[in-house]
Parts: sequence; C-alpha cells; structure tokens
Amino acid sequence: MRVACVQFAPCFGDLDVNTRRIVDEIHRIEADVIVFPELATSGYLHIGPEEVARIAEPLGGPHTSQIITAAEQAGKVVVCGFAEAAVTYFNSALIAGKGLPSPLVYRKTHLFYKETLGFTSGDTGFFVTHLPHLDCNLGVMICYDWRFPESARALALKGADLIACPSNLITHVWRMAMPVRALENKVYLAVANRTGTDHNAGEDVSFNGQTAIYSYNGSVLADASATDDAVVVAEITPADTRNKAINAVNDLFGDRRVGSY
Amino acid sequence: MRVACVQFAPCFGDLDVNTRRIVDEIHRIEADVIVFPELATSGYLHIGPEEVARIAEPLGGPHTSQIITAAEQAGKVVVCGFAEAAVTYFNSALIAGKGLPSPLVYRKTHLFYKETLGFTSGDTGFFVTHLPHLDCNLGVMICYDWRFPESARALALKGADLIACPSNLITHVWRMAMPVRALENKVYLAVANRTGTDHNAGEDVSFNGQTAIYSYNGSVLADASATDDAVVVAEITPADTRNKAINAVNDLFGDRRVGSY
Repeated sequence: MRVACVQFAPCFGDLDVNTRRIVDEIHRIEADVIVFPELATSGYLHIGPEEVARIAEPLGGPHTSQIITAAEQAGKVVVCGFAEAAVTYFNSALIAGKGLPSPLVYRKTHLFYKETLGFTSGDTGFFVTHLPHLDCNLGVMICYDWRFPESARALALKGADLIACPSNLITHVWRMAMPVRALENKVYLAVANRTGTDHNAGEDVSFNGQTAIYSYNGSVLADASATDDAVVVAEITPADTRNKAINAVNDLFGDRRVGSY
Repeated sequence: MRVACVQFAPCFGDLDVNTRRIVDEIHRIEADVIVFPELATSGYLHIGPEEVARIAEPLGGPHTSQIITAAEQAGKVVVCGFAEAAVTYFNSALIAGKGLPSPLVYRKTHLFYKETLGFTSGDTGFFVTHLPHLDCNLGVMICYDWRFPESARALALKGADLIACPSNLITHVWRMAMPVRALENKVYLAVANRTGTDHNAGEDVSFNGQTAIYSYNGSVLADASATDDAVVVAEITPADTRNKAINAVNDLFGDRRVGSY
C-alpha cells in the first residue's frame, strides 16, 4: 500500500482556502492513506477559546464534511488535523474514507503550550482502526504526543501497523526521537508536518517541515525539506510489522515485564 | 560531579584477571561514579546453567568483594556488571562505594537471547539510589533493557538523574535509541559497552564499544571508538535534570496522562 504525507503552510484562519487545497490533494495524490498536518484546515496560532471558536466545527461540519466526502469519493483513507467543536474544543484529527463505516476522530491527548488556552486535552485515548482493504491497522497521534513514549507504545500495543502523526512541530528534537518511536515499537510512522509561520497577537511561530515516513526499523523511507510544499510518498507492507520477534528467543512485546515498570 | 565509563574486552571466563583490571581502574580513574560493562568480571558468552555456575558468585563473593572494597577505599561509586549466584543466577550489576550504606544489586530485567538459558529475569525491578555527597539519584539498567522505553521511564519517574547502563551491545540500533532515552526523560545516561569477541561452543559474538555518556538533551558529552580500550569521562550536574518543565505550561512528567495509555 502507498502512504502519503502532505506538507504545506495552511492559510491562517482561512478554512475555505485550506479545505479546497486539502480536497484537491485528496483527489490528486495517488496513495491509499493520505496524512495532512495538525490543524490543517485552520492554521495553528489561534489562542484562547474565542479564537478557537472561530475556526472550530463539529466532525461533519461545513469544512470537514468536504474532506470526508472527498476521501470517500476518491476511495482513499484520509487523516487530517482540524479544530473540533464538541462539548468543548479539541485539537483533533479526522480519520475518514474507504474502509471506514463512518468517520472517526482522534482528540490530541497531550496539548502543547498555548493550545491549553483554547483546547481541552483529548478524551478519545489512543485507538487503532482496521482498514480491511489495505490489511492495515492505523493509529493516530498528534504532534507533541510524540514526546511521550507511552503514546506510540499504546498504539502499537493495540495493534497499530502504521501510526499517522499530523503535526505542527517547532523544535528540532523530534527528528532525533521520531525514528525511535518507529523502531522501539516496530511500526511504520508517517509524520505530516507543516511549514511556514503563523503571526497572531504580536507573536510569530514557525514550523519546520521535514515531513517524513519512517520504516519500522527507524529508517527514513521518504522525507521533505524544512520549507517547501511537498508530498512525501512511500510503499509500505503493514503486515510486516506484526511479528515482533527479533530472534528465536526475544520478542519486543512478549519480553515486556509489565510488573517491573 | 564526574562520571566515567570504562570500555574494554574482558578475558573470557577469567574472573581474577578481569577483577584485577577493574580494581586498578577504580583506583586510577578520577571520577565520582565509574561504570563498567555488563558481565565485566566474566565476559559474556557463558551458555546455560553449568557454564554460568562457573562464573557466578554472590554479591560480596571473592571477586565482587574486591570491587566493593576498592570502591569504598577509593571513595568512589562503582557500577559493575557480574554474574550473580543467589537463589538462581542473575545477570546483575553491583552498585557500591561512597555514600552507599551497603552494596546494592540490580538484576537485569529483560534478558537477551541465550542469556535466558543460564540466567533468570531480574526480580529487583528498577530502583534509584540517592548519593548524598554527589546530590545525585542514580538508577541502573543493563544492556537490552534499553529496548523497552519503560525501563528508563521507570527509573526517571522514580527520580533518577543519571542512569548507568552496563552493556554488552552487539547490534547498532542502540545508537539511535540511547540518546532518546536521555532526551525523553531528561536524564543523563552513561552507557559502558564492551569491545572484542567472545568465542564459545563454536559461536562468536562481537561487541561494538562506542561507550557514550549522553546529556539530558540527548547530546553526546563524551564517547569512544568501536574497538579500543577507553575511559570516557564527563562532568555532569545531576540537579539540572529535575525541573522537567519545557516551557511555562508544559512539563515532561506533569503532562503524562496515565489514564490514556
């Protein structure tokens, strides 16, 4: 199967423009799973509940419904970050398209910095979606979730073959750690990071691209620059992640001694 | 404080020779904490209970007592791998010397490959030792324990500032992951790996050195080659690891959402 990550700089606060672009990419890119960045419909630097309210919508709202429809029409699976209005506001990613009876949402567990002013920590936990036509078990984490080895571990222990990680990453330490998230769990990892800079309330926040798809041994299958728009594509074989044996005796999951942690 | 790791190739099965060398290094090296490799007194490739019985001794046995005495006489803290005879055989590390009321032992939690034929998985769990004169909280894991993010995590959550990791590493993936163990927990990490090759029962196993001391941001403070004897030394400030805040809002430990994993 082919997995793709889309790297771009969303227009700040312009959901119509960003959604049009996302829908176009869904139709254009030849891949089975397409991952877009965190908050791809809105841009990032919306601070506090009033600003988040202006960009948030329910799953199936006016913009996310277009993305879901495009995914279904194109016969692809899409993971795309958006600001979700539910009982409260969540920094979420929709999972929709072929093989999914209905769209799903993952709500970011670990919120970074000023996200905490406008969003609530996610209540979905980490879960895995089976995609029968791809023989793929897909899990999602978002951006700062990477900082906690527990995130990818929880997904892998629930059977994820592929972790999609919509991101708006700003520091550089993630590039050291992301391949290890793949390696330590023997899973594929698709990090769709954005580029560009958001300006708001006298503040600038820049994002460092370098979108990458990692194999389950931590190697880079495909990646992008720090600044340019890019579509990063890799062929993966999800079932190859499932045998966690590393020799005739040892098994990455079987060797865990849960009572010792 | 100064932490040192000693890299060498133990003489296979010759506890007298290896212990003499270890004792000499304890007196010679100017450091507060000195870490030796896994199974440093015996070498590695002792397969099955009969072979392990020949090299194993209780903590405080004829060879480990010399190491403990040297550590105490030299006024240093020593972490050194040895084959321990207790109720059963453990792949252990002693922790002894200045600041310790009595020597302690960590028993390797995750056993690798043919170690399982001669050793039993450790029953000590991961624990941290406070060294008052160094204002340092020291934790120990051994070699393959690195493969499980839970190991270093457990130590860091128990307050480790510095993790000593006596090792006999043979693959290369550890070099990708070790700095991330330091980074993700904001702890110092001292990996004392051996060099050389053990030959036994028609089998050769080679070890890849590259002993390294990592800072809490994952950077290499000091390291060694893959093949040569070496003493690797770094100055560290244990207390610098304790503030896990990464900005005004986020905290590496405070942000963990244990119910979500």
